[in-house]
Amino acid sequence: MSPLPTFDPGFSTEELTDLYSPESTVTALLAFEASLALALADAGLAPRAEAEATAEACGSGVEDPLAILASTWETGTPILALRDDIGGGEWFHYGATTQDAVDTAQMIQARSALSILDAHLVGIVTRLRDLTNEHRHQPQMGRTFLQDARPTTFGFRTASWLDAVAGHVVELRHQQSLLPVQLGGPVGTGDAYGDKGSEVVDALATRLGLRAPDISWHSDRSGVLALAQGVERMTRTLARIGNDIALLASSSIAEVKVRSGGSSSMPEKQNPLDAIRAVAAATACGGATAMVTTAPTAQLDRGIGGWHVEWLALPLVFQTAGAAAEAMESCLDSMEVDTARMGAGLEAATSDNPQIDAVLAACEEILGQQPHSPR
Amino acid sequence: MSPLPTFDPGFSTEELTDLYSPESTVTALLAFEASLALALADAGLAPRAEAEATAEACGSGVEDPLAILASTWETGTPILALRDDIGGGEWFHYGATTQDAVDTAQMIQARSALSILDAHLVGIVTRLRDLTNEHRHQPQMGRTFLQDARPTTFGFRTASWLDAVAGHVVELRHQQSLLPVQLGGPVGTGDAYGDKGSEVVDALATRLGLRAPDISWHSDRSGVLALAQGVERMTRTLARIGNDIALLASSSIAEVKVRSGGSSSMPEKQNPLDAIRAVAAATACGGATAMVTTAPTAQLDRGIGGWHVEWLALPLVFQTAGAAAEAMESCLDSMEVDTARMGAGLEAATSDNPQIDAVLAACEEILGQQPHSPR
Amino acid sequence: MSPLPTFDPGFSTEELTDLYSPESTVTALLAFEASLALALADAGLAPRAEAEATAEACGSGVEDPLAILASTWETGTPILALRDDIGGGEWFHYGATTQDAVDTAQMIQARSALSILDAHLVGIVTRLRDLTNEHRHQPQMGRTFLQDARPTTFGFRTASWLDAVAGHVVELRHQQSLLPVQLGGPVGTGDAYGDKGSEVVDALATRLGLRAPDISWHSDRSGVLALAQGVERMTRTLARIGNDIALLASSSIAEVKVRSGGSSSMPEKQNPLDAIRAVAAATACGGATAMVTTAPTAQLDRGIGGWHVEWLALPLVFQTAGAAAEAMESCLDSMEVDTARMGAGLEAATSDNPQIDAVLAACEEILGQQPHSPR
Amino acid sequence: MSPLPTFDPGFSTEELTDLYSPESTVTALLAFEASLALALADAGLAPRAEAEATAEACGSGVEDPLAILASTWETGTPILALRDDIGGGEWFHYGATTQDAVDTAQMIQARSALSILDAHLVGIVTRLRDLTNEHRHQPQMGRTFLQDARPTTFGFRTASWLDAVAGHVVELRHQQSLLPVQLGGPVGTGDAYGDKGSEVVDALATRLGLRAPDISWHSDRSGVLALAQGVERMTRTLARIGNDIALLASSSIAEVKVRSGGSSSMPEKQNPLDAIRAVAAATACGGATAMVTTAPTAQLDRGIGGWHVEWLALPLVFQTAGAAAEAMESCLDSMEVDTARMGAGLEAATSDNPQIDAVLAACEEILGQQPHSPR
Repeated sequence: MSPLPTFDPGFSTEELTDLYSPESTVTALLAFEASLALALADAGLAPRAEAEATAEACGSGVEDPLAILASTWETGTPILALRDDIGGGEWFHYGATTQDAVDTAQMIQARSALSILDAHLVGIVTRLRDLTNEHRHQPQMGRTFLQDARPTTFGFRTASWLDAVAGHVVELRHQQSLLPVQLGGPVGTGDAYGDKGSEVVDALATRLGLRAPDISWHSDRSGVLALAQGVERMTRTLARIGNDIALLASSSIAEVKVRSGGSSSMPEKQNPLDAIRAVAAATACGGATAMVTTAPTAQLDRGIGGWHVEWLALPLVFQTAGAAAEAMESCLDSMEVDTARMGAGLEAATSDNPQIDAVLAACEEILGQQPHSPR
Repeated sequence: MSPLPTFDPGFSTEELTDLYSPESTVTALLAFEASLALALADAGLAPRAEAEATAEACGSGVEDPLAILASTWETGTPILALRDDIGGGEWFHYGATTQDAVDTAQMIQARSALSILDAHLVGIVTRLRDLTNEHRHQPQMGRTFLQDARPTTFGFRTASWLDAVAGHVVELRHQQSLLPVQLGGPVGTGDAYGDKGSEVVDALATRLGLRAPDISWHSDRSGVLALAQGVERMTRTLARIGNDIALLASSSIAEVKVRSGGSSSMPEKQNPLDAIRAVAAATACGGATAMVTTAPTAQLDRGIGGWHVEWLALPLVFQTAGAAAEAMESCLDSMEVDTARMGAGLEAATSDNPQIDAVLAACEEILGQQPHSPR
Repeated sequence: MSPLPTFDPGFSTEELTDLYSPESTVTALLAFEASLALALADAGLAPRAEAEATAEACGSGVEDPLAILASTWETGTPILALRDDIGGGEWFHYGATTQDAVDTAQMIQARSALSILDAHLVGIVTRLRDLTNEHRHQPQMGRTFLQDARPTTFGFRTASWLDAVAGHVVELRHQQSLLPVQLGGPVGTGDAYGDKGSEVVDALATRLGLRAPDISWHSDRSGVLALAQGVERMTRTLARIGNDIALLASSSIAEVKVRSGGSSSMPEKQNPLDAIRAVAAATACGGATAMVTTAPTAQLDRGIGGWHVEWLALPLVFQTAGAAAEAMESCLDSMEVDTARMGAGLEAATSDNPQIDAVLAACEEILGQQPHSPR
Repeated sequence: MSPLPTFDPGFSTEELTDLYSPESTVTALLAFEASLALALADAGLAPRAEAEATAEACGSGVEDPLAILASTWETGTPILALRDDIGGGEWFHYGATTQDAVDTAQMIQARSALSILDAHLVGIVTRLRDLTNEHRHQPQMGRTFLQDARPTTFGFRTASWLDAVAGHVVELRHQQSLLPVQLGGPVGTGDAYGDKGSEVVDALATRLGLRAPDISWHSDRSGVLALAQGVERMTRTLARIGNDIALLASSSIAEVKVRSGGSSSMPEKQNPLDAIRAVAAATACGGATAMVTTAPTAQLDRGIGGWHVEWLALPLVFQTAGAAAEAMESCLDSMEVDTARMGAGLEAATSDNPQIDAVLAACEEILGQQPHSPR
């Protein structure tokens, strides 16, 4: 079985590695197939009992999920091997095409991935809120182009970080609410369902807790791109904060301290390990996103390779993003502020900065909301 | 004066070239400065008469706008040269930093650029709606992986295109509504305005018709990235449609004809010129977007170069996007459908596809909305 | 243990998955450490017997290689855990820093990866040569912008493909000959070795069969970028050939046939599975390359994250490139040419095209060379 | 006429702006056409006198070069308008296709652009050599992950920079020697020249001082990619050096001073203007390179848009690279080293570092070579 390449643990998290295991992936494919059978019954196309039998067969899982997935590159689809394994009868995959199953499975996994990211981001938001409250009057030199400029406060700085991260939480929750099912059959038209196509799509979406799109999107990957790019932007913010913390923790500034890794040659050295990981993982996320933004656009009703690269890219986008977020949580958890050194030579800020209040208010709104729960 | 490189006219449009001329850029900078002075009066920080004198000075324009802009790389900012030229008194640029003026000017120009794009996209949406209505029962072979699959209709195909383009219209109108002013002064805190910071920002935003952000965003470029990536995604859809049209117009398929350019060696050849331009311009837009998505993240309160690249990138994102959209309008305008050849050997579709109706309904909503008008 | 994400087998090959297993990676790290100890003896810095004892300890391997690698993100380096496991005495990792070991290990693995790619490429070159010889007079319509243009021959087409692939073979063999060791110690200066620094580096390079660089390259990743981009360009050529084959195999042209995958809904359909895989893997390779080309440049003597992303990126570059090459071999192996259909209505080419001869001659030179053998 | 977008002067240099003016571009196209006519005579295909008349006509230039170029997007090629303007008779563009002229013109301009870059890089190499000689024993703290590590010398640091830049000089001179002519006619086979195809290509290459390729490369853009990526890598090194200088010039370290731009709000501030410009321009160069590395691969004998984007991308790659190099020269010119502060608390390095000598020796070789001179 093929492991992630060298030094991998840093570029994913345990939860996300599990989410994209062969087991979980086949489970997501089967969730599509089971819900499709039941949706056919909902729309009156399949007898209820038969549909339930199909769904039950899907619920039993498969013995060798990796073999199912590996068959894709032998036969062109994992569905034939899946059907061989599951059985499932006449209503298994009825009227559907491989891409319907695979795209919907990706959306099911993306929903969970977004929930995992959300939990990390809420952790980051909470820490940044607390730092902002604690340090809103703590003077610090403001630095532009790395030159001392005018005084700011450390709380203003953390509020700036908080504002950016909170914006990503809102954006990614929005992305989560947009995740669509895919169901169009061989050329997207849903012909097998006659005039019941919309009903089947709606029923499928309801059963899976995803959105019913107006039309199938086999060749339109705009939504996938928007999703990946939304995640990518979030990681860039984390990379920026990580880099800022590395600067503030640098020997020359040394206003904060964070959990540090050692060095093989200088054991006492304070290397900002989590910041490094956040930057590295965010960079990887950018490359994974580039896989989808630079993929060949689909030709007519299904594309040559430009869609298939998402099978690697989307899991990688989420895993690297999770790594960056996990690292940032750890980094902030461990942060100690040297308030004396930070404020040296500066007067304490006397007035409250209203921008900080605006950011904190928006933050509370986010923390009060219930995010979509993963299934 | 430096022209766009070789063969340029294809990578912009007249309107967008004008929008990003030195004249228009300096005008946008002065719009910021004028509105700032008046906003200071609105907030009670500046005497109304003096503020109006400043605004009036800004309204008179400058003699050599390119020289103003070129001074940036000599002195580090265009504002010193601008102030020398304009005068404007005590309240000119009061409490502001260069990035406040430049970022706000970019947002002013972006608003206009989005309106220009919107007009092109509405043109494309209208043509696609008409094609969809006309050809919804016109049979056509569906093709996946370039292999004949099952029959579809040409109207279903154009509805798929329409759905994607309409989604971008909605997204870019949303992006337009989010464009913020920038005002934070040297380190973003707005210290010069005491406890009136939020009032000044609000007044500035109201005067310019932009959004008032919770906190200054000198180092947080997430919004700029989202904007550029939203435009990039739109161009990718146009590239896809252009490529599809080139395929349908290919000698081997030849189901549609479009305006064609000749060849220096084969004058009679039917090269799908507009599709080519759309693909080329969309690719360029992706590269221009990469300038901002791969830029170094800002260090602390202002970054080293990662912000400055936006001065080239954002205009280029919009100009290339405009070129792609203009080309696609022209391409669709000229499209002739060979219905006999397209439907040969296929039965006419008898039933209405409800997906098409859903897309058309969403399309009408978009066409009925009044987009933001540019100023 | 973390598997590659979903649907993985298509994005690597068995050999490359093995090459980048935790076992192989730790073996490469230990090859560095063993050779360093011996090089210290070569340069007269370490007693020969002690150095050999260190080398022997390194040769025995470790029990849990993944745990060694995973410790990186806990302690900041895999070397501490490695030393704990191996022992190795005073001369283990003497004067070196973590990056020396990791970078050299990457180069050791890259050499093997390039040899694996070379074998695939030689396979492709051989098939293309044979196709060129067989079909050099086989007429085919030339198609520009997908429009019929003037006749060409199928052998000219395969010679064009061959020329491009052969160029990559030459380039990647050159890249292989440039792979350097890394050895500079904490800040790159090699201070621990006194005036013997160059001797140690030379001895290390000789022992490992790598190049001795003029100066350590901890912060200069130009060579890594050149390597990744050279591989990326090769995959783009494979993607182009794959796309061309998909076009020639399309239902509308149908001049060639290739091994095809089925469809979950249309079992008889001829989907060009290998071409699809080649395009998808090449796209992934481009994204993996973007991880290093867009990584933050290193700050001073070692960078924050921009180096670390190579730990994921380089393996991914090679694995996806191997997948593309394996797919292309399979695709060409299975290709059948419908000469009657291809030549229909065209006259046979009567004269020999000298460009074909030039390409074939260059090809024979490549096939006659002995590539670097992996160790 | 369309100017480069806002704030442009920083993203090009005067020389490079001139090189890519419409005038220079049409001149390059005409150089191709003139040399082709003469090459036809060289190969015995055209009467010498007629060929010379064609060449003479090409030498006279055109009145409105921008109009010639703009016609491309109306008629699909600039050659028809060029022929209308120039006349040139039977042998003008004989047997050639538009892409032959445009690609060769790009290579002619690329050769000049590389010479312009070479001059800047030689300037940088010279300055770095001098700094290395001057400061090879000047102690400085080595900093890894922005943490103080072990002492190095400033001369070792500049030698590291020098090594990287010198490598790019060698690489780009190599790239310059590879620049090929393009000549294949409508489908690349050079059919119009019968069995004289190779002779015409050779004669054309000799006359233009470019390389004669084995086979036409209309659809194989590997060489263009390698060229752009070679330039991109060079700019990344300049961005790294720029960023390092900004760090060393930061208020917290302040070991060097460079020419600085002011601030609109803090006139006394020392913003490292040239470093900022180098980083911004290098980032732009990366985006321009992405235009070609992510362009759709060509379909069969000529591609849909993927080639055309080079018309914008290549000029932009070179212009932004020139800007980065010009900025770096200026930055190094202005650099003052605060040796007391830099060496504070550190002992002077007593021994010579042999790595420095190796780098200096390689540097002298480069400075002693005569680069290709532009024409």
